[in-house]
Amino acid sequence: MIMSKEALIKSIREIADFPIPGILFYDVTTLFKDAERLQELSDTMYEMYKDKGITKVVGIESRGFIMGPILATRLNAGFVPIRKPGKLPAETIEESYDKEYGKDTVQIHKDAIDENDIILLHDDLLATGGTMEAACKLVKKLRPKKVYVNFIIELKELNGRSVFGNDVEVESVLSL
Amino acid sequence: MIMSKEALIKSIREIADFPIPGILFYDVTTLFKDAERLQELSDTMYEMYKDKGITKVVGIESRGFIMGPILATRLNAGFVPIRKPGKLPAETIEESYDKEYGKDTVQIHKDAIDENDIILLHDDLLATGGTMEAACKLVKKLRPKKVYVNFIIELKELNGRSVFGNDVEVESVLSL
Repeated sequence: MIMSKEALIKSIREIADFPIPGILFYDVTTLFKDAERLQELSDTMYEMYKDKGITKVVGIESRGFIMGPILATRLNAGFVPIRKPGKLPAETIEESYDKEYGKDTVQIHKDAIDENDIILLHDDLLATGGTMEAACKLVKKLRPKKVYVNFIIELKELNGRSVFGNDVEVESVLSL
Repeated sequence: MIMSKEALIKSIREIADFPIPGILFYDVTTLFKDAERLQELSDTMYEMYKDKGITKVVGIESRGFIMGPILATRLNAGFVPIRKPGKLPAETIEESYDKEYGKDTVQIHKDAIDENDIILLHDDLLATGGTMEAACKLVKKLRPKKVYVNFIIELKELNGRSVFGNDVEVESVLSL
C-alpha cells in the first residue's frame, strides 16, 4: 500500500526546542514504531526506486541506518554504512565539512563501492544539506556509475537541495 | 533462501587489533554490502521469529539499527531505537551499566513500548553481554508481554548468555 502524505505527517511527532532552543525537531521514531506506517513508508520508497537498478543503498549514521537497510533488502541491493571517524574497522576514505561550530568528518570503507555500482544515498532529513553533501562527495570518490539521493523529510524553506550538482537526482518523500 | 553458516562466516571480515590491540573484530559490513548475503541473513532471521507474534523490534544504536529495521518490516512489526543519552527527543527512561573503564547509559522513549507488545531485542554481536543486559532491563521496565533477544554473532567463549534470566529467549544466527 502507498501511504498518503497526510498519514505520514500525522505519524511524525514535532518537538519544540530540540536539540537547542528555536529548533522544531521532527521525530520520526513515532512513525517507525507504528508497524503499518513503517510498512507504508517502505512501500512508498520502494516504488520510487524499484526501476533504477540500485545495487547498493548507503545510509548515514545513525538515523540513515533505519530506512537505508530496509530499502536495501526491498531493492535486492547491498547496504553500506557511512560512519563517524574511528567506527569503521577496515581501510576508509573520509570527507570533512563545516558545521555551525567547527568541523565534522564522515568515513566510508574504501572497498564498499566500485565502478559497477548504482548508489542510493539515504538520510532521514534534509535541512541545510551539509552532511549529505559531504557523503555525496565521499561516495563519488569511489566512482560509482550513478548516485541517487533520498530523504524521508525535506525542509523546503532551507533549500538544502541547492548544494547538490545536476548529476545527482535528489528526492524526498515529504516536503515540509 | 536460507543461508548456510559457511557462506555467512565467509562473508564476515576478521580484523585483528580493532578497536584495541588483542581484540579480533568481526566486521559484518562485508556481509551487509553483499546483496545476496544480506537477503539470506534477512530470510534466516525472519524464519527464526515469524511465528512468535513479534509486535516491535528494538535495535541498539548503532549496529543494531541495520538488521533491526529489516526484521521489523519482514515481521510486520514496528521498529524502536535504543540510543545513547541525549539523542532521543521525547521523554525517555534509562539504564546504566559498567564497562571496562567507567559507566555507559542507554535510553528508550517512554511511550515506545506498552503492555500489549511482544518484543524482539536485536544487536549485531553478543560478547560479554553488558549492553544487551542493560537494554533488556530497560525494555522490561515498560512491561511488554514477552522479550526475545537476538544477535547475528555470539562469541561462545565469553558466555555472555549467562547474564540473561530464564524469562528471556536468547538466540543468535552464528556461534563463533
